[in-house]
Parts: sequence; C-alpha cells; structure tokens
Amino acid sequence: MEMQNKVGINHGGRLRRSDLAVRVLALVLTLAAAVVLGVNRQTTTVSVTIVPSLPPVNLPVTAKWLHMSAFVYLVITNAIACFYTAVSLILTLATKGGIKKVSMIVTVLDLVVMALLFSAIGASGAVGLIGYQGNSHVQWQKVCNVFDKFCHQVTGALVLSFIAAVAYLLLVVLAIFNVYKKL
Amino acid sequence: MEMQNKVGINHGGRLRRSDLAVRVLALVLTLAAAVVLGVNRQTTTVSVTIVPSLPPVNLPVTAKWLHMSAFVYLVITNAIACFYTAVSLILTLATKGGIKKVSMIVTVLDLVVMALLFSAIGASGAVGLIGYQGNSHVQWQKVCNVFDKFCHQVTGALVLSFIAAVAYLLLVVLAIFNVYKKL
Repeated sequence: MEMQNKVGINHGGRLRRSDLAVRVLALVLTLAAAVVLGVNRQTTTVSVTIVPSLPPVNLPVTAKWLHMSAFVYLVITNAIACFYTAVSLILTLATKGGIKKVSMIVTVLDLVVMALLFSAIGASGAVGLIGYQGNSHVQWQKVCNVFDKFCHQVTGALVLSFIAAVAYLLLVVLAIFNVYKKL
Repeated sequence: MEMQNKVGINHGGRLRRSDLAVRVLALVLTLAAAVVLGVNRQTTTVSVTIVPSLPPVNLPVTAKWLHMSAFVYLVITNAIACFYTAVSLILTLATKGGIKKVSMIVTVLDLVVMALLFSAIGASGAVGLIGYQGNSHVQWQKVCNVFDKFCHQVTGALVLSFIAAVAYLLLVVLAIFNVYKKL
C-alpha cells in the first residue's frame, strides 16, 4: 500500500507525457480560438430603402463578436479554459503528477472546463447555423451571405474550440484509464 | 493485488448507492426533457398584410420543435442519453459495479453523454435566448411574445436537460473520487 501511494499517479512514462502533450495542445487551441473570434470584425455596406420614392442608401454595417451573446460566451469560455490550462500545466509540472489530491482536483476541473466548452460550442454553433441558413419558420434571415469573412472566422474559432474540447475529454479519459489501471 | 482486484470498484456502500440514485435521476430527467420538448407545439394566429390596400389577414402559424435544428438536436440527445442510461443501469446492477472494465467503460460513456448534453443545451439555450430577446444587429425578431407557451416549454426542457447534464457530471466525479480513494 505504501509503495502504491509513492508510485501514485505518476507513471513517469507514456501516460504522463501524453497528458502534458494534450494539455499544451488545449492551451494553444483555446488561446487561438479566443483570439480568432475576439479580433473577428467585418464592415460592409448594405443598401437600405428608407423612403420608397427615393433610391436606396448605402449604409455601413459592422459585424463583431460582441453583438451576439453566444459568441461572447465562446470567447469568455475559451479565455477561462486557456487560463485554467496554464495553471493546471504549472501544477502538473510542479508536482510531477505525483500528488494524488492535486491530480484528482485537476481531473475534476478538466471535466468542468470541458462541459463549459461544449456548451459554448453548441451555443455558437446553433447561432452560426442560423446565420448560414436562416430559419423561415421564425423569419430569421441568413446573414452570412453579407458577412462572409466574419462567418468563416466564426467557423474557424468553432473548429479550434471543438478540438480543444475533445482534448479535455481525452485528458479526463487518460486520467480515468490511468487510475483504473492501478486498481 | 489479488484482494484489491476482488474488492474492485464495488464499495457495496455509500458511493455505489449514490451512483445508482444519480443514474435513475438522470434517466427520469432525460426522458422528461425529451417528452416535454417532443410534444411541444403551439398554434396561434398572426395578422399578415398581404396587399397594402386590403385589411390584414389572420393566418394560423404553428411552432414545433422540428422547425429548429437546435431543438431537434436537444430531443435526440436526450433520447440517446435516456436509452444509454437504461443500458448502463442494467449493466451496473448486473455486474454490481464489481467488474473493473465495465465500470471504466461506463464512466467513459457517461463522459461522452455529458458532452453531448451540454452542447445540445448550449445550442437550444442560444436559440431560445434569441427567441426571447431577438437580436437587432442581424434583425432577428423575438418570437416568444407570439409563441409564449412554446417558449415556456422549451425553457422547461432546458432546465430538465441541464439538471440531467449536471447529474452525468456528478456520476463521472463520483467515479473519479471512488477510484482515486483506492490508489
């Protein structure tokens, strides 16, 4: 039992290195996703008919992530995930994964961050889909024909976030495999 | 080592009973959420002006979950989660939580179902929010002033799904606590 405790969670081998690699990947991806969506901005002109008897007026309109709650949620969630991943990396490296309680808490927090990311991806994905296709039942017109570059960048941020969320899922699965192996 | 394997994951005590209780709760909640949203339907009349010189015409319009991809996703996800939970309950009861591999696979699947549910909740939540508030930047009008009963029922399904998703999160956390305790 004493020996088991000393061996702890630290494999010092394949599993711990894969945990670190996946964690660094998640850090980079969440940072990239937050930046890609955070700097996303497109200004374009649309013709608007104000008075029917006069010719339409060209007005500049701007799309940015702050205009849609779902995108704000995705940027904030990615930022939180990125910050947490940096802290968890430092913790994992400092304790060398050898302290049981720290490993357990990190796994539970990985789980919570994963849940946050998946809900934010769902939110932005649903809004993005309506942006691309529109929805005739509620008469929400598609807007991605106008804001094409903006929509592409949202898709990019979504892909990055999704890979990051899968990385967190993998981190939890690795931790579960790791501890079950020792039972 | 042999003794440890025999003791396995089965505490036979507090933790295993709490796992069963949470699993039954998740089963009931996902079933309820799928039904509440699946039977959701509201028909109302709206005045539409077809020809400006004639008085507006009252047209019946119906809102149902099939009209919005996000709601379809939420119903399907809850149905999958409900079916999976029934299978996992049978597996857990049949093996009495004593077979290491089964417990591990159930925990990983709990995790995947949790991810699915959180993304579906995010999707329907984002669409529901626009339904309640509208979004002036993309000129998507709110529709919950017209389909009030429909929107209330979506909110109900969302609350049920959210508690179910938290229940799955709890199941994974319980499993993690349970195995770390034995290291």
